Amino acid sequence: MDNHQNLLTKQVFTMASEMYAYGIREVVISPGSRSTPLALAFEAHPNIKTWIHPDERSASFFALGLIKGSNRPVAILCTSGTAATNYTSAVAESDISNLPLVVLTSDRPHELRGIGAPQTLNQVNMFQNFVRHQFDMPLADDSNGAVEVVRYQMQIASQFFQGPQRGPVHFNLPFREPLTPDFDMTDLLKSEEKEIPTYQKTASIDSIIPILKRKKGIIIVGDMQHQDARELLPFATVHDLPILAGPLSGLRQSEHPNIISTYDLLYRVGFNPDVDFVIRVGKPALSKKLNQWLKTSDAYQILVQNSALPDAFPVPSDVTFEMSANDFFRSLGEVPVVHRRSWLTQWQQMNYQAVAEVESYVNHATDEAANIGVLLEKLTEEDTLFVSNSMPIRDIDNLFVKGKVQIYANRGANGIDGVISTALGMAVHKKVTLLIGDLAFYHDMNGLLMAKLNDIHINIVLLNNDGGGIFSYLPQKKSAAQYFERLFGTPTHLEFKHAALLYDFGYKYLETVEDFKYTSLSQLDSYIYEVRTDREDNLQQHQILYKKLSEIVNA
Amino acid sequence: MDNHQNLLTKQVFTMASEMYAYGIREVVISPGSRSTPLALAFEAHPNIKTWIHPDERSASFFALGLIKGSNRPVAILCTSGTAATNYTSAVAESDISNLPLVVLTSDRPHELRGIGAPQTLNQVNMFQNFVRHQFDMPLADDSNGAVEVVRYQMQIASQFFQGPQRGPVHFNLPFREPLTPDFDMTDLLKSEEKEIPTYQKTASIDSIIPILKRKKGIIIVGDMQHQDARELLPFATVHDLPILAGPLSGLRQSEHPNIISTYDLLYRVGFNPDVDFVIRVGKPALSKKLNQWLKTSDAYQILVQNSALPDAFPVPSDVTFEMSANDFFRSLGEVPVVHRRSWLTQWQQMNYQAVAEVESYVNHATDEAANIGVLLEKLTEEDTLFVSNSMPIRDIDNLFVKGKVQIYANRGANGIDGVISTALGMAVHKKVTLLIGDLAFYHDMNGLLMAKLNDIHINIVLLNNDGGGIFSYLPQKKSAAQYFERLFGTPTHLEFKHAALLYDFGYKYLETVEDFKYTSLSQLDSYIYEVRTDREDNLQQHQILYKKLSEIVNA
Repeated sequence: MDNHQNLLTKQVFTMASEMYAYGIREVVISPGSRSTPLALAFEAHPNIKTWIHPDERSASFFALGLIKGSNRPVAILCTSGTAATNYTSAVAESDISNLPLVVLTSDRPHELRGIGAPQTLNQVNMFQNFVRHQFDMPLADDSNGAVEVVRYQMQIASQFFQGPQRGPVHFNLPFREPLTPDFDMTDLLKSEEKEIPTYQKTASIDSIIPILKRKKGIIIVGDMQHQDARELLPFATVHDLPILAGPLSGLRQSEHPNIISTYDLLYRVGFNPDVDFVIRVGKPALSKKLNQWLKTSDAYQILVQNSALPDAFPVPSDVTFEMSANDFFRSLGEVPVVHRRSWLTQWQQMNYQAVAEVESYVNHATDEAANIGVLLEKLTEEDTLFVSNSMPIRDIDNLFVKGKVQIYANRGANGIDGVISTALGMAVHKKVTLLIGDLAFYHDMNGLLMAKLNDIHINIVLLNNDGGGIFSYLPQKKSAAQYFERLFGTPTHLEFKHAALLYDFGYKYLETVEDFKYTSLSQLDSYIYEVRTDREDNLQQHQILYKKLSEIVNA
Repeated sequence: MDNHQNLLTKQVFTMASEMYAYGIREVVISPGSRSTPLALAFEAHPNIKTWIHPDERSASFFALGLIKGSNRPVAILCTSGTAATNYTSAVAESDISNLPLVVLTSDRPHELRGIGAPQTLNQVNMFQNFVRHQFDMPLADDSNGAVEVVRYQMQIASQFFQGPQRGPVHFNLPFREPLTPDFDMTDLLKSEEKEIPTYQKTASIDSIIPILKRKKGIIIVGDMQHQDARELLPFATVHDLPILAGPLSGLRQSEHPNIISTYDLLYRVGFNPDVDFVIRVGKPALSKKLNQWLKTSDAYQILVQNSALPDAFPVPSDVTFEMSANDFFRSLGEVPVVHRRSWLTQWQQMNYQAVAEVESYVNHATDEAANIGVLLEKLTEEDTLFVSNSMPIRDIDNLFVKGKVQIYANRGANGIDGVISTALGMAVHKKVTLLIGDLAFYHDMNGLLMAKLNDIHINIVLLNNDGGGIFSYLPQKKSAAQYFERLFGTPTHLEFKHAALLYDFGYKYLETVEDFKYTSLSQLDSYIYEVRTDREDNLQQHQILYKKLSEIVNA
């Protein structure tokens, strides 16, 4: 065995074992030659599962799904060149969504950099706009430093695997040929799990006690990224506070009487309450109307967010608590009780009427919303619903007014890219149904390959209105009518049954909402349920609902 | 009309008219809301053609094809968020390939940056590793500066639209709502074409005259990126110099007697000539074996490259001329003639025998090479063959020993991403046949949408060996045999006829090379010709050819 192979093996086997030690159990590898040393190290590791995906863009979003499903850091590995650039979208998403994605890009050795060598581009710090930590590793050599740097760097990276600073890290990894490690050295792969120090921060609650004594208070809960926030429920009960809980808050499923689920619709039709204080919990709400109201409201705003860089959107809060929601509400145990029964009742009654309107709408309408209503009826607490960005997540915000299904989405950068892949990554760990429109489906169609190659079960409900339905709600529809269909409508006229055949999915075409009602979701084979809808019709029917709700608000 | 709309309109209409002035005639737009102002400006421009593509990754590679086909700068425009990150692969490719890609990313206004607003990520300088020029535009305001900055920036960018510094530029463009410009102001779209100063540099030839008097010289011509290099042909004739012309040199088609087209095969089987000087012209050769030889050879190396950053790969030259190939060879008119008849004849004889072996091989073999030989027989000087990276371009290097077809590829970063989209962009301007393997085809399958939506004609010859054929030639095949098929072979088992149906392509499955021989390529409908081949069989048959060539070299 030559010296080069010995040193290379030490380097990459140590890397794999350190990653295991800090909690990594899954790696998504996109095939290539330059990544061989580390790919083989992961493959030879007894306790790391590897996934193989030939499209790096889909592979990186698949890893986001694995993280969301397992709540662990996940690594992605690719070869040098444009392969790495395909990771950019998922890295940006993981930045904003605080997901511990460990990005491993293989690179040519330094003597081939910057001189026009093939498949070589400037990968050093290439994700600098989006990562918590980045490091260009040295080539393997025979000093102690060569192994030490691996240990040091993995320890530094691990602080971003958990806690409020959670997020992506990037290691660029130059390798010299020959690239095959020595499989007789697999003892180096052994390692114990290491502890990552957890983040603690105590905030002073005293300053807000006078505020919390005021009458008209509300709690707004955005995307909790599946951190538990249930401690706020008894607090809201005792203090008679309405809870405007978003679909990603994990709270709508509680069926707590203070939950207000229809606020987006109410604000949309002109609701404009006079509020003294707002407790904002988690990531910003996804309701554009609620956020617009927050910007104009005089209410004192308290932000509670378990993140090192709390979100100032839509408007900076008056005071910010960098702590978990549960810690915050537990520490409010001593706050004097203020009774606000009539205040709460007003909210509850309005929500009750709005929920009834939504339910009646879903039962009578024939548009996308009706189909989403039917889907929600089918799902139980055993199910996870992964919701695409653009229209589906907005419809879920309005229509998910009861039920126990768990809801997930990529709400960091809100892109329509990588949705199928993220859902499939989650489906490795949970029972997933994906709700998606036709453009997002098209955008990540390549992602379906993972289901075919790995027998991952998923049901996909594809709302096909042949184009970008969300744009129908924009002023451009009228203000630039002559260009609208070409620039925004963008129909593709794709017949997705062919995609189902290509990727070995079952396929069912549903002409009407009645057809969907009498269809059972598959428990065994992966299926695409294509529901054909109409953009203009959706818009019209939504307007009817808004009109009815407007009557409630104005009453 | 309000003030905001007036200012916004001035800004974006000036931007569109300045881009026209500096030569932009085509823009590829990916739909979104934030990009509305500029999208509508381009749409309303009487002399700019817009293309609509919902997948930004494919859209950006489609633009590379438009640039290659039209030899003009082309702009790409997308909305804010992850949309922009999808451009990264094509931006990296355009950097290395010196293609004037004008990247326009829409952004949220500054008050929404860095505070957790939706669909907002740090787009400022996000492509800094890859672009010649980048600028974060200001929001529209009512100072003269707001229009001046557009003019200044477009002028700065235009210096990268032509000449040796050609390459990508990035403008990040924040827009405030409302987003629709005023269509009564379309007079602002009018502009005259502006001149871009061309680049001139005179080099001193005297220093290399003693070198050029030596006996054993060769000329190596790499990827000329379709710059004309034909002035070197009479020089080579007079001075009896062999020309090792790559498949992207544009010279093999000349059928000049000094052209050596089989050098990769000869070097592969052990050819190791003693050479006094080498004139390297254009981008580095794609033959790995030739480059390895250049690194070990004692020959004096002269590099001629029309690029501000000449390529030092595979080894720095002894002298570099930053000028066009034609200028260089014209300036050698006074160099004393050295007769090297026997030197040239040795090369010609060896090449003659190797060509005969290749032709006989292609006629008798049944593998991918045989199919590529059949394809080359079908193509004339009217045709453009776009060749995918990975195996196809290497096979073309070896097998394209005669014929008139023009050959193109993405040989900047050598990625397998975006190949279909680039070929379709070219097919807008030329009659294109694409030669591609199954993994690259899968990777950019979404790119096929442009053919369906826009009636662009292309024929695609898909060599399907169900996986990554090129990896069979790597040492990993033996040194990591137990992991090879999973990590490198990566079969997808896709039946691509379904992709043909999805995107309205004609489809023909070709079982044998004989079937392909008797198939005419379609002149009307776009077709996918799927040729099923076998990775192991390709490897075996190639070994036979290498053995025969080895006998020639050792004779």
